[in-house]
Amino acid sequence: MNGARALVRTLLSSGVEVCFTNPGTSEIHFVAALDAEPQMRAILGLFEGVVTGAADGYARMAGKPACTLLHLGPGLGNGLANLHNARRARVPIVNIVGEHATYHRSLDAPLTSDIDSIASAVSGWIRTSRDAQSVAMDGAEAVAASYGPPGQVATLILPADVMWDAPAGPADPIPRRLPARPDAARIEDVARTLRDSGEAGTLLMNGSALGEEGLALAGKVAAATGSRVLSDTFVTRMARGAGRVNPWRVPYLGEQALQLLQGTRHLVTVETKAPVSFFAYPGLPSELTPPGCTVHTLAEPAEDGVAALAALVEALDATKAVPEVASEQRPPLPTGPLTPRSIAQVIANLLPEHAIVMNEAATAGSAIPGMTATSAPHDWMDLTGGAIGQGMPAAVGAAVACPDRKVLSLQADGSGMYTVQALWTQAREELDVTTVIFSNRRYAILAMEYGRVGAGIPSAATRSLFELSRPDLDWVGLARSMGVEGARATTAEELARGLERGFRESGPYLVEAVLDG
Amino acid sequence: MNGARALVRTLLSSGVEVCFTNPGTSEIHFVAALDAEPQMRAILGLFEGVVTGAADGYARMAGKPACTLLHLGPGLGNGLANLHNARRARVPIVNIVGEHATYHRSLDAPLTSDIDSIASAVSGWIRTSRDAQSVAMDGAEAVAASYGPPGQVATLILPADVMWDAPAGPADPIPRRLPARPDAARIEDVARTLRDSGEAGTLLMNGSALGEEGLALAGKVAAATGSRVLSDTFVTRMARGAGRVNPWRVPYLGEQALQLLQGTRHLVTVETKAPVSFFAYPGLPSELTPPGCTVHTLAEPAEDGVAALAALVEALDATKAVPEVASEQRPPLPTGPLTPRSIAQVIANLLPEHAIVMNEAATAGSAIPGMTATSAPHDWMDLTGGAIGQGMPAAVGAAVACPDRKVLSLQADGSGMYTVQALWTQAREELDVTTVIFSNRRYAILAMEYGRVGAGIPSAATRSLFELSRPDLDWVGLARSMGVEGARATTAEELARGLERGFRESGPYLVEAVLDG
Repeated sequence: MNGARALVRTLLSSGVEVCFTNPGTSEIHFVAALDAEPQMRAILGLFEGVVTGAADGYARMAGKPACTLLHLGPGLGNGLANLHNARRARVPIVNIVGEHATYHRSLDAPLTSDIDSIASAVSGWIRTSRDAQSVAMDGAEAVAASYGPPGQVATLILPADVMWDAPAGPADPIPRRLPARPDAARIEDVARTLRDSGEAGTLLMNGSALGEEGLALAGKVAAATGSRVLSDTFVTRMARGAGRVNPWRVPYLGEQALQLLQGTRHLVTVETKAPVSFFAYPGLPSELTPPGCTVHTLAEPAEDGVAALAALVEALDATKAVPEVASEQRPPLPTGPLTPRSIAQVIANLLPEHAIVMNEAATAGSAIPGMTATSAPHDWMDLTGGAIGQGMPAAVGAAVACPDRKVLSLQADGSGMYTVQALWTQAREELDVTTVIFSNRRYAILAMEYGRVGAGIPSAATRSLFELSRPDLDWVGLARSMGVEGARATTAEELARGLERGFRESGPYLVEAVLDG
Repeated sequence: MNGARALVRTLLSSGVEVCFTNPGTSEIHFVAALDAEPQMRAILGLFEGVVTGAADGYARMAGKPACTLLHLGPGLGNGLANLHNARRARVPIVNIVGEHATYHRSLDAPLTSDIDSIASAVSGWIRTSRDAQSVAMDGAEAVAASYGPPGQVATLILPADVMWDAPAGPADPIPRRLPARPDAARIEDVARTLRDSGEAGTLLMNGSALGEEGLALAGKVAAATGSRVLSDTFVTRMARGAGRVNPWRVPYLGEQALQLLQGTRHLVTVETKAPVSFFAYPGLPSELTPPGCTVHTLAEPAEDGVAALAALVEALDATKAVPEVASEQRPPLPTGPLTPRSIAQVIANLLPEHAIVMNEAATAGSAIPGMTATSAPHDWMDLTGGAIGQGMPAAVGAAVACPDRKVLSLQADGSGMYTVQALWTQAREELDVTTVIFSNRRYAILAMEYGRVGAGIPSAATRSLFELSRPDLDWVGLARSMGVEGARATTAEELARGLERGFRESGPYLVEAVLDG
């Protein structure tokens, strides 16, 4: 058995069952090992941004890592943006990067580059395997490391000769470290503050705390103390919809976030940190915690937020408190032109039960979170790191992780073009993903930001840098050219028809929702 | 005047006239500065791999740098693969990367990442601007640094507040350092070796030496001494075709390269180094210099290879030697099915005078270099760093640099999908690029390498990782969806018709050449 096969077998016994990949010559022995270990499902992406984004979406829904298989430094570079998003999502990924044979590196062949430097920007753990004898153990450690806590990108760099050398043997799985329970003193402090301060507190949550259980516990805290429950602006995964506690999300724009948080005296963070603005703006604050507000850490991102919330409920004597949950209430299907509001209504009306929503709709999708809070129960995932081009790849990964659920991919057009190749993988793997392209034919956020930073009115030449027009993109044509059927919608009725078709049949489908103005 | 405007004005006075970009909020003040300085031509790419590949192609043909404008670490990551290729091509690029405001960085907002680490893998020069007062000088230094010699990626990281702060003023251009002339002793050594050793030598060339002048000089050396002239496997830019000295290229496969070099006793390198194999293979040598061969460096990549060749010609008393140049000889237009050979014949027959050929045709294009050696005079560019997805973006940059010339983009299908968004920029800018997609619906090189590394016969599951089929890509549909007209060719006649149409009319056109088997 060579190193590659020992590694693949170890990954399998460690619970890694899916490999998203675009391999090259230096990874060919790993590919050959997949032949001998067919339990590992290998899924091809036509660009590495698809590969890494799929690994992110998979981890969010499967709760465990997939592995990638990338071709040297450039392949890693191509996948870097979505690894950045995965890092911000704190999900486990075993990120495998091929490398030249150990003795070949010093020759500086054309594809040689400093893989470590590139990987360090996104990885919580990096190792280059030394030889075939140790690679299986490296793999087991990479899987354990990917779990953190918190979850992280564990990058394993594999020189080609480490893969092809023999003999090698598999290694035993290494038990993952579980998130620690926050210490009692902190919980007691938060309980005392919420109970005795006489001022409403605010819980700010992300991570595992946004699952159904954590939200229900947070709802009990809120019911017992009059506190509010907020989520971060962008969440890794959140249980939403009817029957769930639906937190407000901190708005993207700093001014609006400050308004929401105004008057907060006690901010209690659960698997997140105090809010900061996404970008800096001249003359505006970057930190969004209001003056006079104390931040209390209930659980760090590396800690078990659900256990912390359960302990807090106990400490507050609130086990019998009744959280406020959404009752199912779908807006009627609208008619007429497509607007951000009518699109949100159509989606909120038609969203299937237990759907997985991947949201990279950007500005044109701003009405959807509010409108779907009372839709059928569903899971929601956001673009977590701001590196656009995550949505359609993450939808791939979510659909692979949950073949029995409908995936709804809400995708801005500008962002969608970044990893448009994901549609092909959706077609090849016959994934049950319905994509809505928000086709406003511009980077609307940039036009908005141009005004916000005080740059005045852009010239036609500058405006053209924000516009996806001249020529317009034909999204239905793009999808069809990669094997995904679709339809164009210019009215709410057409959008509804398209979504119904997408949700009714299995396999991928795309609706281009054309917004004017 | 704020920092952004001072910088843009300095770039312009330093000779940088084109900015390939996909900006974000942190770069918005730079974008606003473009409004005030309209001489800077800003060109939008819908993905950063397009942006950086275009800057590479531009530099190769313009002989000077364009600047990029990328959005933080993830934008840089997306552009990294083509910056890697540019690094290997040794071309000048002023690579501008936006960054959070100086005081915002420590807050670790979602888009924060270690830009320096990512940039270090591709950059010969990196600087983060400190304040608005120094940013213009940083820009002038970045331009000078990009020229090297040899040319390199100079990365300038721009915190947002450095852009928006005032007052600032432009800086004077900094004269570029010119490549040094190699010292006389080295030239004398090579002259003596070629003249007196009684053994034929081999010149191995890349860089500026592959221009018309350098090739003619190398041809005189060859005529006077019986030496051969070779080029590297992948060249930055080479003058080719009728009336030129047409060197053999070192084959991609190590075995074939060794065969070509067998018996060579004296290898003379000009702006390159001794050849190494692209990848390592079990049991095969990585270094391709044959045993008993001495390597003589005539010019390092940082030195002036043309001046070195001229001095060598003088030392050999060969100024009157007559180099062997190709006489124009076009193969007849073939008929019947498309094969690598018939495709090459069609291209060699129809290639317009002074065309720029960007070659990323991979395996299916293997017959083209040989067949076009006697075509009309043209310039040829290769994928230099092995990071696929360079071809269509570099064609964008070449067409921007040389609006009066036809650009022929020879593009393998698997590689083309990496930066397929380039077609949209070709349409928007109405660039005169004719693209031929080599649609063999597979990563043919991987299927070949699977056999070469001794991995045996792949299973159907593994084979599917090498195949772009199920579903097939519709390249004509992809192009049309991005505003580029095209046609599908399954016979040599259809390919000729498509190429004739592409060459006849201005603007972009695409022909999908469908190869069976």
